[in-house]
Amino acid sequence: MSKKIKRGNLGASPGTLQYVGPAIESRTRITKIEFNADFQRQSAVRHSGDCLAAVQPGVNTWLNVDGLHQPELIGAIGKEYGLHPLLLEDILNTLQKPKFDFFGDNVLFLVLKWLEYNPYTREVEPEHVALVLGPTWLLSFQEERDRDIFEVIRKRIEAGAGKTRQNGTDYLLYAITDLVVDQYFRVLDAIGENLEELEEALFRDAQQKHVSQIYTVKRELTIMRKTVAPLREILLAMAREAPRSASTLISPTTEIYLRDLYDHVNQVNETVEIYREQMTGLLELYNSTMSNRLNNVMKVLTIISVIFMPLTFVAGIYGMNFEFMPELHWTYGYPFAIGLMACMVIGMLLWFRWKKWL
Amino acid sequence: MSKKIKRGNLGASPGTLQYVGPAIESRTRITKIEFNADFQRQSAVRHSGDCLAAVQPGVNTWLNVDGLHQPELIGAIGKEYGLHPLLLEDILNTLQKPKFDFFGDNVLFLVLKWLEYNPYTREVEPEHVALVLGPTWLLSFQEERDRDIFEVIRKRIEAGAGKTRQNGTDYLLYAITDLVVDQYFRVLDAIGENLEELEEALFRDAQQKHVSQIYTVKRELTIMRKTVAPLREILLAMAREAPRSASTLISPTTEIYLRDLYDHVNQVNETVEIYREQMTGLLELYNSTMSNRLNNVMKVLTIISVIFMPLTFVAGIYGMNFEFMPELHWTYGYPFAIGLMACMVIGMLLWFRWKKWL
Amino acid sequence: MSKKIKRGNLGASPGTLQYVGPAIESRTRITKIEFNADFQRQSAVRHSGDCLAAVQPGVNTWLNVDGLHQPELIGAIGKEYGLHPLLLEDILNTLQKPKFDFFGDNVLFLVLKWLEYNPYTREVEPEHVALVLGPTWLLSFQEERDRDIFEVIRKRIEAGAGKTRQNGTDYLLYAITDLVVDQYFRVLDAIGENLEELEEALFRDAQQKHVSQIYTVKRELTIMRKTVAPLREILLAMAREAPRSASTLISPTTEIYLRDLYDHVNQVNETVEIYREQMTGLLELYNSTMSNRLNNVMKVLTIISVIFMPLTFVAGIYGMNFEFMPELHWTYGYPFAIGLMACMVIGMLLWFRWKKWL
Amino acid sequence: MSKKIKRGNLGASPGTLQYVGPAIESRTRITKIEFNADFQRQSAVRHSGDCLAAVQPGVNTWLNVDGLHQPELIGAIGKEYGLHPLLLEDILNTLQKPKFDFFGDNVLFLVLKWLEYNPYTREVEPEHVALVLGPTWLLSFQEERDRDIFEVIRKRIEAGAGKTRQNGTDYLLYAITDLVVDQYFRVLDAIGENLEELEEALFRDAQQKHVSQIYTVKRELTIMRKTVAPLREILLAMAREAPRSASTLISPTTEIYLRDLYDHVNQVNETVEIYREQMTGLLELYNSTMSNRLNNVMKVLTIISVIFMPLTFVAGIYGMNFEFMPELHWTYGYPFAIGLMACMVIGMLLWFRWKKWL
Amino acid sequence: MSKKIKRGNLGASPGTLQYVGPAIESRTRITKIEFNADFQRQSAVRHSGDCLAAVQPGVNTWLNVDGLHQPELIGAIGKEYGLHPLLLEDILNTLQKPKFDFFGDNVLFLVLKWLEYNPYTREVEPEHVALVLGPTWLLSFQEERDRDIFEVIRKRIEAGAGKTRQNGTDYLLYAITDLVVDQYFRVLDAIGENLEELEEALFRDAQQKHVSQIYTVKRELTIMRKTVAPLREILLAMAREAPRSASTLISPTTEIYLRDLYDHVNQVNETVEIYREQMTGLLELYNSTMSNRLNNVMKVLTIISVIFMPLTFVAGIYGMNFEFMPELHWTYGYPFAIGLMACMVIGMLLWFRWKKWL
Repeated sequence: MSKKIKRGNLGASPGTLQYVGPAIESRTRITKIEFNADFQRQSAVRHSGDCLAAVQPGVNTWLNVDGLHQPELIGAIGKEYGLHPLLLEDILNTLQKPKFDFFGDNVLFLVLKWLEYNPYTREVEPEHVALVLGPTWLLSFQEERDRDIFEVIRKRIEAGAGKTRQNGTDYLLYAITDLVVDQYFRVLDAIGENLEELEEALFRDAQQKHVSQIYTVKRELTIMRKTVAPLREILLAMAREAPRSASTLISPTTEIYLRDLYDHVNQVNETVEIYREQMTGLLELYNSTMSNRLNNVMKVLTIISVIFMPLTFVAGIYGMNFEFMPELHWTYGYPFAIGLMACMVIGMLLWFRWKKWL
Repeated sequence: MSKKIKRGNLGASPGTLQYVGPAIESRTRITKIEFNADFQRQSAVRHSGDCLAAVQPGVNTWLNVDGLHQPELIGAIGKEYGLHPLLLEDILNTLQKPKFDFFGDNVLFLVLKWLEYNPYTREVEPEHVALVLGPTWLLSFQEERDRDIFEVIRKRIEAGAGKTRQNGTDYLLYAITDLVVDQYFRVLDAIGENLEELEEALFRDAQQKHVSQIYTVKRELTIMRKTVAPLREILLAMAREAPRSASTLISPTTEIYLRDLYDHVNQVNETVEIYREQMTGLLELYNSTMSNRLNNVMKVLTIISVIFMPLTFVAGIYGMNFEFMPELHWTYGYPFAIGLMACMVIGMLLWFRWKKWL
Repeated sequence: MSKKIKRGNLGASPGTLQYVGPAIESRTRITKIEFNADFQRQSAVRHSGDCLAAVQPGVNTWLNVDGLHQPELIGAIGKEYGLHPLLLEDILNTLQKPKFDFFGDNVLFLVLKWLEYNPYTREVEPEHVALVLGPTWLLSFQEERDRDIFEVIRKRIEAGAGKTRQNGTDYLLYAITDLVVDQYFRVLDAIGENLEELEEALFRDAQQKHVSQIYTVKRELTIMRKTVAPLREILLAMAREAPRSASTLISPTTEIYLRDLYDHVNQVNETVEIYREQMTGLLELYNSTMSNRLNNVMKVLTIISVIFMPLTFVAGIYGMNFEFMPELHWTYGYPFAIGLMACMVIGMLLWFRWKKWL
Repeated sequence: MSKKIKRGNLGASPGTLQYVGPAIESRTRITKIEFNADFQRQSAVRHSGDCLAAVQPGVNTWLNVDGLHQPELIGAIGKEYGLHPLLLEDILNTLQKPKFDFFGDNVLFLVLKWLEYNPYTREVEPEHVALVLGPTWLLSFQEERDRDIFEVIRKRIEAGAGKTRQNGTDYLLYAITDLVVDQYFRVLDAIGENLEELEEALFRDAQQKHVSQIYTVKRELTIMRKTVAPLREILLAMAREAPRSASTLISPTTEIYLRDLYDHVNQVNETVEIYREQMTGLLELYNSTMSNRLNNVMKVLTIISVIFMPLTFVAGIYGMNFEFMPELHWTYGYPFAIGLMACMVIGMLLWFRWKKWL
Repeated sequence: MSKKIKRGNLGASPGTLQYVGPAIESRTRITKIEFNADFQRQSAVRHSGDCLAAVQPGVNTWLNVDGLHQPELIGAIGKEYGLHPLLLEDILNTLQKPKFDFFGDNVLFLVLKWLEYNPYTREVEPEHVALVLGPTWLLSFQEERDRDIFEVIRKRIEAGAGKTRQNGTDYLLYAITDLVVDQYFRVLDAIGENLEELEEALFRDAQQKHVSQIYTVKRELTIMRKTVAPLREILLAMAREAPRSASTLISPTTEIYLRDLYDHVNQVNETVEIYREQMTGLLELYNSTMSNRLNNVMKVLTIISVIFMPLTFVAGIYGMNFEFMPELHWTYGYPFAIGLMACMVIGMLLWFRWKKWL
C-alpha cells in the first residue's frame, strides 16, 4: 500500500480542513441522485449550493463526491449539511482507518477502504471512501481515480431493479458497504491465486525471489487485516447498537442485511488469517528446502573429497623420488597401484551406500 | 480444501439467488419424511409443489434436498416456506462458513460443513450443509455428491429406534449436527494416524518430502480450525440463548443434548490445536535433524581433509625434483616417509577422539 | 498419552452406551462405603441390585466402580440412580475431556483425568475418572488398572481421621478432586526433574536425541495443558455458581475448599506453561549450539585447507619436470623451499590469530 | 530509549517527593497563562506563591512548569493547589508510564510521554509530561529540555485562533494530548522511512549491520508500543466514563474530540504493530538471503572441487615413477591425458547443468 | 529460582499443616510491634501465648514471624487468632503462588513473593511472604533468611516518620506490599543492566556462552512474570472490590495507595514483557551473527580452494612423466608455467571482486 503520502501540518488546530493524500489535478465531480420507489433523477452538480438534499417528503437523496483534493468544496458541502468539523477532517484524510461514529442522533458517519490488488507489484492499493447518512440523504465521498466504483449501484437505481429503490438511504448505505466488502473477496481471490502459484513454484523449484514475494504478500496481508478488522466491530455496532439507540437512522429491515454483511466481513478476516498462516508455512517450506539443498551440495562435496583425496595421496606416494622404493621396480607395480585405488573407491562407495548418502 | 470454486457475480444485488460451487450435472434429489412417535412415511419429491410440510397436527416433516446447483428449485422451496432471500443466498453459497441465525421467531437457520479426509492428497474436503428449522418442519440442504450422509438417520427413523421418532424436529436438527460433529472426530482420527506415521518416519529417516507433507496437513488443520471454531459459539448460542428468547423452537429436553454436543465440538477444537502444535514440533524436529545431519557430513569432510591434506603434502615434498635432497638417497628414506605419515595419521585420530568427533 | 484407542460406532444414536477405551479382561470391582461422623461400613458389591444408596437419614454412601468395560453394568447402576443416558455415555467414554454439568438440581456430574508419568517413555498416561454427586451419595467411576488410586481416602474414612467423615459427600467429591490435582503436582515434579536433566545434558553435550526428548516432553505438556485447563473453569463454576443456583448439593463449608483447589489447579497450569516455554528455550539453545558447532568444524576445515593448499602447491611447483628450472639445481634449493613453506605457515597462523579463529 | 536513569531511594516511605530522571542543572521555568474567549495574559512566574489560579470567574489558568528536577518547587505548587502526595510523586518520576486517575471529583491527573525520534541512533527518546486538570485551571509539567513542545498552543492562545480560547481547560487538556499524539505520527513516519530504507537495502545487498539495525528499531517499537498502548484505555475512560461520573470536569463538547483522539491513538497503535510485523518479516528475509548466499558459496566450492580433484588425480597418476607404465612411452600419451581430462571436465559440466547448479 | 524443594506428603488430608521449603536449622524469631499515632512498643515474643493482639482500643498490633519451618508454632499462632486450616497450609507452603482471599468478613489473607537477584548465577531467588490482616492486627510470615526485609518499616514505625504510625494496619499491609514491589524494580534494574551488558557483548563478539546466558535470563523472566502477574489482579481486587464488600478492613484512604501500587505492578509487568522480547531479539541477533560468521568462514575456504586447486592442477600437469611433453623442454617452459598460474590467480581475484566476496 502506498506509504509515501505526506501527512499535513500535524500541529494544526484540531478540526482544520486539510487534504491528506496523493496530489491530484483533475476537478472534483459531484453527482446527485434523487429517488424513491416510483421515481429517480440523476444530475451532475456544478456548484456547492446545488448540493442540498431534496425537501419533498418521501424522496431520498444520494450525493456522490468524486475527489477529495479540494478541501474548500468539501467544507462548503459540510456547511450545507451542518456536519461537524472533525467529521470533515476525517473525510479529507485518506490515511484515516475505517471508523464509525454517531454525530448527534441524526448523523451516522462511516469510513471505509476500497481495495484494489495490483498483481504486478503484488500490492494492495486502498482508496478512501467516506459515507455520511442522514434521515433522508446519504453523502458518499471517494478519492478521484480513473475507475467509477459505485457505477453498478447507480445503474441498479436507474433500472429500478433490486431493493435499492424500494428502501431508504440506510439500505443504500448497506448496498455500498456490501459492494466494498465484495471487492475484498475479489482481492482475496487474486491473492489466493498468487499464493497457489507461489506454493506450486516453491514445490517445483524454490528460489530466493520467492522469499521476497512471500514477504511482500505477507506485508500486504498484514495491512489488509488492519483495514478489514475494524469493519467487523463497526458492522456489529451498527447492527446491534443502532436500533437500541435513540437514533432511527437504521430500520429493522436493514438490520438483517447488516448482520449478513457482518458475516461476510468475518469470512474475509478469516481468509486473511488463513493466508497469513499459509505464507508463514511457505517460508518454513522454503527454509527447509534450502537447508536440504545445502545438505545435498555438501554431500556431493564430501563424497568427491572422500573418494579423490586418498586416491591422490596414493598417486602422490608413488610420485615420490626415493631411490629405494621397491614397488616402483615391480613389473606389475603400475597395475597394482591402479588396483589398490580401485579397491579404495569400491570401499568408499559401499560405505556411502551404507550411510544412505548415495 | 478445494479453493478453485469461482464466486458468482460479486457485484449482484444482495439476495440474488446464485449457486456458488463446483459444476454438477446430475439432478437434485428431494426426499420428504413425515414422522411422529407412531408413524413414518418417506417419499421422493418430484416437483416443488409437493415440498410443503404436513398440516396434520403432531406430524413432523423433514425435507432433505440433495443438490444445490439448481437455484430456481431452491428458490421455489424457499417461497413455499416463506424464507428470507438472504437465507436462500447462504444455502446456495457453498463457500459460506458455518453460521447460525434467527429469521423472525419461527425460523432458525444453521450452516454446517460436512468434512471428508482424503488420505492420498492429505486434504480435507468440505461439503456444504444448510439446515432450516421451523415449528414442525426441518429443511436440510446438501451438495450433490456420491455419498448419502444422512442415510443413517433416515434408517433410524424408519426403524423407530433411538429417540429421533419420539422427539420433534429440534431433536432431529441436533441429531444431524451430532452426525456432522462425529464425522469431525473421524477426520481427526485419520489426520492423527497420518501424524503418527509422519512422526515415526521423521524419527526413522527425515526427508524433504516430509516437510511438504507437514505443510499440507498444517494447512488443512488451519482451514479445519476455521470451520469448526464458529460451531462452538453457534452451539453455545443455541443452548443458552434460544430458550430465553421468545422462540420456542428448541425444547428444554434438546437443550441438554446441545450442551453435550458443545462439549464434543470443544474436544474437536482442542484436538485440532494439539495437532497443529505437534506439526510445528515435527517441523522443528525436522530442522534440527537436518542441521545435525549437515554437522555430520561436515565432520566427515573435515576429518578426511585433515588427515589427507598433510599426507599428500608430505608425499608432495618427496616428489620434488631438487638435486640435493638427502632423504631421497637414504636407504630407509621410503619407510621413513611412510612412518612419518603413519605418525601424523595417529596423531590426527587421537585429536579427533579428544574432540569427540569420532 | 495413548492415542491408539478406537472410538466406538460414531454414527450411533446419541446416548447409546458404548465403552470407548483399551480392551480389558478382568471383572469390574464395585465397592460401597456407607459412613457418617459416627460410623462407617465398607463392602464389596456383587450384583447391581446392591448398588443403591442407603436410605437411613444422615448416612452418606460412596459407590466406587473400578472398571468401565462392562457397559451393561454401568447402565444398570445408572438406572438404579436415575441417571441421564448422556451422562452414562460420558462415563463410558475414556476419551472424554474433563467436564462439569448439572443434570437437574440434584445431580452434579464431573469428569476428571488421573495422570501418571512414565519416566521411560516420557509420556503422560491418563486414566478416566467420573464422579456423580447426589444429595446423599457419590458415585465414582474409574478405569480398571493395577493401581488403586482412591485407597488413601478409603483408609482415611476407615480411620475416621481428617474431615472426610464429619462432612458430607460434597466434601468427599472435593477430597477426590484434591487427590487428582495433587497427583498433577507429582507428574509435574517428575517432568520438572526430567527438564533439569535435559537442561544439564544440553549444556554439557547437546545431542540429536535430546531434540526428540524435547519434542516428546513438549507434546505431553501440550496434552496435559488441555487436560488441566478445563479444570480451572470447572472449579470456578463449582465454587462460585453452585451456591447461587437452586441446588444445595455443595455446602458453603466445602466452597472454601473448592476455591483453594482452584488455586492449586491454577498453579499446575502455570507450571505447565513455564515448562513449555523452557522447552522452547532448550530447543533454541540446542539449535544455536549446533550452529556454533558447525562453525567450529568449518573453521578447522578452513584452517587446514588454508595452510596445506598453498604448501602442497609449492611442493607441486618443485615437482614439475621442466628441464630448465634453476632452483632445482641450487645447493640450498631444498632448504630454501622448506623455508618458504615455513614462512607461509607462520603467516597464515598470524592471520588466523588476528581473525580470532585460533 | 534511555534506560540509564537511576531510580531514587526505593525503600522510601510512599509519597516522599523524589525526582527520578537525568541530572539537570538549569532552573525550572514556570509560565502562567490566563485566558478566556475575550482576553489572555501570559507571564513568567518567579516564586511559587504566584502560581495560584486566577480567582475571577470565567477566567481559565494554564500553569506550565518546565523542569522537574526541583522537587521542593513542585511540592510547593502541589500545596498551593492541594494535590495528593502520590500525584506529586508521579509527576516527579520520569519513568512513570502513562496513566490517568481521578483524585476526588475535582482533580483529573494524566501522565503522557512526548516522543522524539533520533535518526542517528535510531532510538526513541521519551519526555515525561504530566497534566493536572482542575475546574478552572490546568497544570502541565514537562522535563527541562532545549525544545519548547507547547509553544504552538501558546501561540494559538495568543492569536486567539482555533477553539482553544473559546473553550475551557478541558479542551486545553485535549489540545495538549492531541499535540502529543500528533508527535507520535511524526515519530512513526520517521521510523517508517527508516524501515523502507532498510527494506530497500536488504533487497539490494543484505549485510550483518542491517540485523542490528532491525534489532534496534524493533526494540524501540516494543517500548513505543508500551508507551502508546495505555493511552487507548486512558482516552476511552476519559471519553466514556468521565461524563457518567459525578465529575463535571470534562464537558460533552470536549468528549467528541476525545473520541476522535482515541481513534488517532488506535491508528498509532496499529501502525506500530504493522511495523513490528514488518521488522520480523525483514529479519526472515535477511536470514533466508544469508542461507541462500551460503548455498551459492558452497556450490562454487563444490563445483571447483568436483572439477579439479579428479583432474589433479589423473595428473598425479601420470606423475608416478613406476618403471613400467606403458602410457608414459606412447608418442601421444600427453595429448591422450589432456584429452581424458577435457572429457572429464565436459562430463562434470553437463552433470552440473542437469543438476541446475550452473 | 530454586526448584529443588520437595513437596510434602501430597496425599495428606487437606488442611494438614506441613512445612514445604528448604531445610532450615535456626529458630523462628517472632517480633510483636504495638503502635498507634502516639505510642509504639517492639518486643521479641518467646512463646506462642504472647502472640495475641493488644486488647486496648486504638492500638494496632503487628506480629512478624521470621521462619516457617516449625509448623506446630504456626499452628499455635493460628489457633490464637482463629485462622482457617487452609490459610495456615498456604502460609507454610513456600511454593504457594501469590494469592489473595477473604476468610469471613474479618480476615484478609495475602501471599506475596520477595525476590532477590543473584548476579552470579543470574537467577531470581524468591522468598515466601504471607500476610494476614484482621481488624486491628496484621500477621506477617516470612522465610528465615539472613536478611531482614521489613527492617526499614520497623524503623519507620520506631521513628514515627511517614504515615505508617498515623494509619491503621491496612496501611501497614500496603506499606509492606509496596516494599515488596519496590524490590521488584530493583531486581528488574539488575536484570536490565545484565541485558545491556549482554547486548553490548553480543554486538562486540557473539559467543556460545551468551546463548546460555540469554536462556537463563529468559527462564528467570518467565518465572518472574508468573510471580508478578497475579499481583495485578490481587491489587485490583483489593482496591476495587474490598470497599464494596461487607468487610471494612480496608479504609478508603488506603484504597488510593493500593490503586497507585497497582500501577507500579503494571509497570513491573510491562518491563518484564519488554525484557523478554528483547531477549528474543538478542537470540535472533546471535543466530544471524553466527550464520554470517559461517558465511565468512566458507568464503575464505572457497576463495582459497578456487585459487589453489587450479594452480596445483597445473603444477601436477607439468609433474607428469610422459616422454613426449614439448613444454618440458622449452627454455622458457618454467617461466611460462609460472606466468600461466599468475594469470589464473589474477582472473580469480577479479572474479571474486566482481562477486563482492573480497
